[in-house]
Amino acid sequence: MDRNTDTSQKELRSVAFIGLGIMGGPMAANLVRAGYRVTGYNRSRAAVDRLVEAGGHAASSVAEAVADAHAVITMLPADAEVTEVVLGEGGVLEHARSGSLFIDMSTISPRTATALGEAGREHGVGVLDAPVSGGEAGAVEGVLSIMAGGDAEDFERAAPLFDALGTTVVHVGPHGAGQTVKAANQLVVAVNIQALAEAVVFLEQAGADLPAALTVLGGGLAGSTVLNRKKETMLNRDFAPGFRIDLHHKDLGIVTDTAREIGAVLPAGALVAQLLSSCRANGEGGLDHSALLRGVERLSGRGSSHWNR
Amino acid sequence: MDRNTDTSQKELRSVAFIGLGIMGGPMAANLVRAGYRVTGYNRSRAAVDRLVEAGGHAASSVAEAVADAHAVITMLPADAEVTEVVLGEGGVLEHARSGSLFIDMSTISPRTATALGEAGREHGVGVLDAPVSGGEAGAVEGVLSIMAGGDAEDFERAAPLFDALGTTVVHVGPHGAGQTVKAANQLVVAVNIQALAEAVVFLEQAGADLPAALTVLGGGLAGSTVLNRKKETMLNRDFAPGFRIDLHHKDLGIVTDTAREIGAVLPAGALVAQLLSSCRANGEGGLDHSALLRGVERLSGRGSSHWNR
Repeated sequence: MDRNTDTSQKELRSVAFIGLGIMGGPMAANLVRAGYRVTGYNRSRAAVDRLVEAGGHAASSVAEAVADAHAVITMLPADAEVTEVVLGEGGVLEHARSGSLFIDMSTISPRTATALGEAGREHGVGVLDAPVSGGEAGAVEGVLSIMAGGDAEDFERAAPLFDALGTTVVHVGPHGAGQTVKAANQLVVAVNIQALAEAVVFLEQAGADLPAALTVLGGGLAGSTVLNRKKETMLNRDFAPGFRIDLHHKDLGIVTDTAREIGAVLPAGALVAQLLSSCRANGEGGLDHSALLRGVERLSGRGSSHWNR
Repeated sequence: MDRNTDTSQKELRSVAFIGLGIMGGPMAANLVRAGYRVTGYNRSRAAVDRLVEAGGHAASSVAEAVADAHAVITMLPADAEVTEVVLGEGGVLEHARSGSLFIDMSTISPRTATALGEAGREHGVGVLDAPVSGGEAGAVEGVLSIMAGGDAEDFERAAPLFDALGTTVVHVGPHGAGQTVKAANQLVVAVNIQALAEAVVFLEQAGADLPAALTVLGGGLAGSTVLNRKKETMLNRDFAPGFRIDLHHKDLGIVTDTAREIGAVLPAGALVAQLLSSCRANGEGGLDHSALLRGVERLSGRGSSHWNR
């Protein structure tokens, strides 16, 4: 160990970053730019090489990445990958320094996040669940929204690091609360997209001037960020992602599973989860989530012959 | 007739205003302030007296109000009242001057609005359907959103008059299109409120810090005008209207009826229409539409004992 062995220090200078994909890659690069020593690990080596080009360091295993790190960040696809990398053999908690901080920024279930928090405590490692919103563009530009769950003291230690990644950074409660808020975010986004999709089909079927109509809607109580950002994709039926149906489907699985556990009954959320499933069943999982519009068109008898004109 | 009998003139100076309620009263007063000669009629006399105090003129019948008017405006509760006042014996079209303009600003069905457009044509009277959004405050301050359907020429004639009533004034298509857009607006608003209500219950049941969570949601793709305007009412469970459940229930009746007619299938809209009905069935028709939150709480086993603490 060539670094300060007082691992309870408040300042986090050395960061291990595990999962250097579409989101994790640019996030790790932003930490390098902010002056952190970042050691990256990714299952495929090409992403690690990109981090090295950006000024980071390469590790060939999770164990190697986390050995000297004051903070360990994971940004992985789903619960299974996070659980394996953190709790599995050769994983984060087996090799992390006592007193270090582990931050999972993946979108996973609040239940798993809570379990990771407890496991960290047993290993003397502080844990935060800190999922993000803002997508690839937000990751590249360092303007993510970050919703963090865990102990307030750990949140304070992580704050400078979060500031290098995002602009809206909020501590929303204990272990799991970050994931709960992210789930609620995905619930509202999905239902608001569905509302807009239904309005678009309604207006078109009725023969209204759609761009004019959406301008009026945007100026009143029907206005939303979804309307502002997805209006053009819906008008043009340009469903290149963006945020894929497959990913939103995964996230609404977290919403509906969690809702069942905690006794929250969400009729609109459950309905839209089914409508996302219907889009996937129709081969649209790789399209942007605004393609919920296609589902409403299909229900309304406006099938693929309409889109493919 | 003491006024110019060339009723095809482009300038509308004399306006009959029928229906001087919560919305119509302040709208008529704003026309007076803008320099129009406004003659008002209302079933209950007190509202007419208020208009006279504001500088308007009183009529004791629809026929008397419209006899000398260049433009006739109605602002009435629903289809039945509008149909009676416009098409009935002693009604607007029986007494309106040829070449005058009739503008219905009530929220009614696109089907009725289209029928009024055709009836006006037979009487040589231009017709616009021009429902509004923005509520009582928007009416008082003259900052309504106005979505107008009908001929472009009639819209141009009415434009100065609309400018005295609102700030966002858009021609959205032929007869009925104004009501179609208003219906789409009410559809999106209801579904967005339901989405927020489900998120609130989900977050509370999970133990997240609700105000912090709603701040994060508002900054991202989940942001909406509903979130901005209804956050406090939901946090405080302060459901004083605002826009009553009863009225939104009426409007979603227009949405679902029209959708059935035109073959638009709106699963989330239909669901929320039922949830509004459930609130009414539970005696909440007089509360603000953000009281959809109470429906989600009821479904989630958080009954009145919770609210009445």
